[in-house]
Amino acid sequence: MHPSTRGGPVAAPVISTAQVTYDTDRAHVFHSWSAQKSLRPMVIERSEGCRLWDGDGRSYLDFTSQLVFTNIGHQHPRVVAAIQEQAAKLCTIAPAHANDARAEAARLVAEVAPDGMDKVFFTNGGADANEHAVRMARLHTGRYKVLSAFRSYHGATAETINFSGDHRRWINDYGSAGAVHFHAPFLYRSEFHSETEQQECERALEHLDSLIRFEGPQAFAALLIETIPGTSGIMPPPPGYLAGVREICDRYGIVMICDEVMAGFGRTGAWLAVDHYDVTPDLITFAKGVNSGYVPLGGVIIGERIASTFDDRVYQGGLTYSGHPLACAAAVATIETMRDEGIVENAAAIGRDVLGPGLRALADKHPSVGDVRGLGVFWALDLVRDRETKEPLAPYGGTSPAIGETLAAAKDNGLLVFNQYHRLHIVPPCIITPDEVREGLAILDAALDVADSHTVSDR
Amino acid sequence: MHPSTRGGPVAAPVISTAQVTYDTDRAHVFHSWSAQKSLRPMVIERSEGCRLWDGDGRSYLDFTSQLVFTNIGHQHPRVVAAIQEQAAKLCTIAPAHANDARAEAARLVAEVAPDGMDKVFFTNGGADANEHAVRMARLHTGRYKVLSAFRSYHGATAETINFSGDHRRWINDYGSAGAVHFHAPFLYRSEFHSETEQQECERALEHLDSLIRFEGPQAFAALLIETIPGTSGIMPPPPGYLAGVREICDRYGIVMICDEVMAGFGRTGAWLAVDHYDVTPDLITFAKGVNSGYVPLGGVIIGERIASTFDDRVYQGGLTYSGHPLACAAAVATIETMRDEGIVENAAAIGRDVLGPGLRALADKHPSVGDVRGLGVFWALDLVRDRETKEPLAPYGGTSPAIGETLAAAKDNGLLVFNQYHRLHIVPPCIITPDEVREGLAILDAALDVADSHTVSDR
Ligand SMILES: Cc1ncc(COP(=O)(O)O)c(C=O)c1O
Ligand SMILES: Cc1ncc(COP(=O)(O)O)c(C=O)c1O
Repeated sequence: MHPSTRGGPVAAPVISTAQVTYDTDRAHVFHSWSAQKSLRPMVIERSEGCRLWDGDGRSYLDFTSQLVFTNIGHQHPRVVAAIQEQAAKLCTIAPAHANDARAEAARLVAEVAPDGMDKVFFTNGGADANEHAVRMARLHTGRYKVLSAFRSYHGATAETINFSGDHRRWINDYGSAGAVHFHAPFLYRSEFHSETEQQECERALEHLDSLIRFEGPQAFAALLIETIPGTSGIMPPPPGYLAGVREICDRYGIVMICDEVMAGFGRTGAWLAVDHYDVTPDLITFAKGVNSGYVPLGGVIIGERIASTFDDRVYQGGLTYSGHPLACAAAVATIETMRDEGIVENAAAIGRDVLGPGLRALADKHPSVGDVRGLGVFWALDLVRDRETKEPLAPYGGTSPAIGETLAAAKDNGLLVFNQYHRLHIVPPCIITPDEVREGLAILDAALDVADSHTVSDR
Repeated sequence: MHPSTRGGPVAAPVISTAQVTYDTDRAHVFHSWSAQKSLRPMVIERSEGCRLWDGDGRSYLDFTSQLVFTNIGHQHPRVVAAIQEQAAKLCTIAPAHANDARAEAARLVAEVAPDGMDKVFFTNGGADANEHAVRMARLHTGRYKVLSAFRSYHGATAETINFSGDHRRWINDYGSAGAVHFHAPFLYRSEFHSETEQQECERALEHLDSLIRFEGPQAFAALLIETIPGTSGIMPPPPGYLAGVREICDRYGIVMICDEVMAGFGRTGAWLAVDHYDVTPDLITFAKGVNSGYVPLGGVIIGERIASTFDDRVYQGGLTYSGHPLACAAAVATIETMRDEGIVENAAAIGRDVLGPGLRALADKHPSVGDVRGLGVFWALDLVRDRETKEPLAPYGGTSPAIGETLAAAKDNGLLVFNQYHRLHIVPPCIITPDEVREGLAILDAALDVADSHTVSDR
């Protein structure tokens, strides 16, 4: 019994639907990556384009694209309509059958991939895409170990969290996933004492080659790499790096897997991030942007070499919802709409003409911004206490009051930005307009004043 | 260029949409659990209730529920409408936020669970549900190894395929998942030389306890068991077995995880299969029936003991689409509709009054049927060459002409049944009517004549 209804006729207080949602969430929803007791989740009741509305009707400009997946923006009417139509027609069917939505989605995904990558295996999300890509590589090579980068994120199944290179791996690492980590190029915090991009590229390739030779080249089934690392800091690789990785993989018979779960489908101002680097991996994994997460979907784009391995040999892998028609119909509508409306081109132009220049201007102004990196609608600000020492504004694997206050300042003024450790990621939907970018940058400008107050220049 | 359009103006042949789907599928869709070249997938264009229609307009009675997930039947109008409404309102939002569909789905799922299991962590499907349940158990106990049954299926990520106990594990087993397998009770093919259910129960518990003591009890984080094994043969455990497992888990501090991905949400004629056995595990995993697979969804129902571990300690796990609003809205509508329409009760009655008796009558008649097992709409026929020796009609891990012909006979007459190895599973939607059952059983009756022709009685 609700307390206020006890002991006689008193007017029941009006409980808002947002409050009901909040209370029900706190009672029953177990949230990821969190201690549960201290959580205070924001209730989201509505979304449209680049904006969200909370339970009190306050609106926010969404520079997170949630977890960097609503590339086409929130509630795009064409994708919503496609989902509704497919729901009326055929929500679901087992993976063994052929279905028009599934087939067409595979065709369109293959169409945006490099030549010679014609087959698509669908999963529900990014982690299982990487699971199955690695499975294919292991069955293809007969080898076990997997190379992946520090500063990477590949998912949170037991294997993919271990292939990942951030602190979330630590507590889940039982030494059994066959993961071996290398350092990818990152000039701003170079592991190789480099002074130029070219040097960083050469040394990172040398390091990778050396690591493989010391670990034993015949041990490795796959090298799994984010074409452009996302969650770990948005670090576009220097020219030549991925081509060099391709060469090393060929030299040692290692399957090259590019993880485009975050970087793919418009995020970088290209259909796929590999398009910037003229490299063809053996496998590409995707999720998120493929249908902007309107319905869970991920997958593996499979190059001819790996595909032919399974022409006559059984691929021992699968999942109940592989090629889910509703998810595939959303992908078809998303890809077609992105084409028709020039959304990938918009992301490129926004990055080049508005967001990139705007963020560089903020960096010039704010001592807390140590580095600006990115392209398209895929940007990171590296926040530092001290530009000289590059001491980060929060420790690796943690957060800090400085970061907390900066995020709160942005949110209080109606802007959501993505954060990991000491970094802010500016990753709005690909459909964002110049005006919306400017609106967000103005709020960010004020929030960075708060960050500045935690730098040495302000002590 | 299509051959017929070459060399001048000839009338272009009309290519059916089904043919386009088929051709596109063969060119671009990589299917699970298969060698790709020899696949001839059936095009499915329409579905409703317990029926499907192929590309030629032929209809089939669906006694598979696809991969045993469309418990509410195909295209239930209330669930379709709920998906369409949620799509119009809010397709997606990140897991960190609170959202009404997500909160309400968690509340309803917790409501069907045993008392004291109040929190729900959502995933996209069954494999990741088990991944996260085992993760929780490992973090809770600080231990690594996991007990699971031979004759089980838990998913196809690297870990869950290794926890699984069918032949698909073999090629994916690198000895690193921490999996230790035991034999669960199965009187028809007893590993324990038992002659009664009670004996089988006692001996299976003895075997489990002994295995744990020899392996080292402090090694085990979790015991993962299908409440009623599904894909591996639908073997309802004898009375007392699961309670005995619960005791053993308590004795050694092992987290008990019941996998109800297939058995849950009406399949057995109860909301959850644990309801038949009066046992409360620490964690229950679910997927499939929770929303009949209309939108990918799975999850973990978390008991108080494990939940409280993560009150103040971070749960290091997550996924982009955890608690996906569209999937959750489908779950809300599915659970409410199943309640309102008495669908779980229907499954129970069908099993008790129509399907169970009907299958037993077929077993009496057909020498190829060695055993009939099940309840609700969850039944297996164990097909044998010889009732005396119980020699299966196909080998473990494989198939046979006898099985192929039997399945083809059913399909040719418009009935789809689920098959693994030498078994046929009769697993229609929970909404099936007595007339539809009888229609299907008549077709099955004729198909079993084909199976009979491969038995010793007919040599
Ligand atoms: C690059 C990359 N790979 C894989 C994943 C995992 O995807 P999911 O959360 O859908 O499992 C992510 C998620 O953020 C990602 O960014
Ligand atoms: C009992 C059980 N657990 C887990 C799974 C894996 O579920 P999914 O295919 O959604 O990963 C299945 C799938 O058939 C299952 O039957």
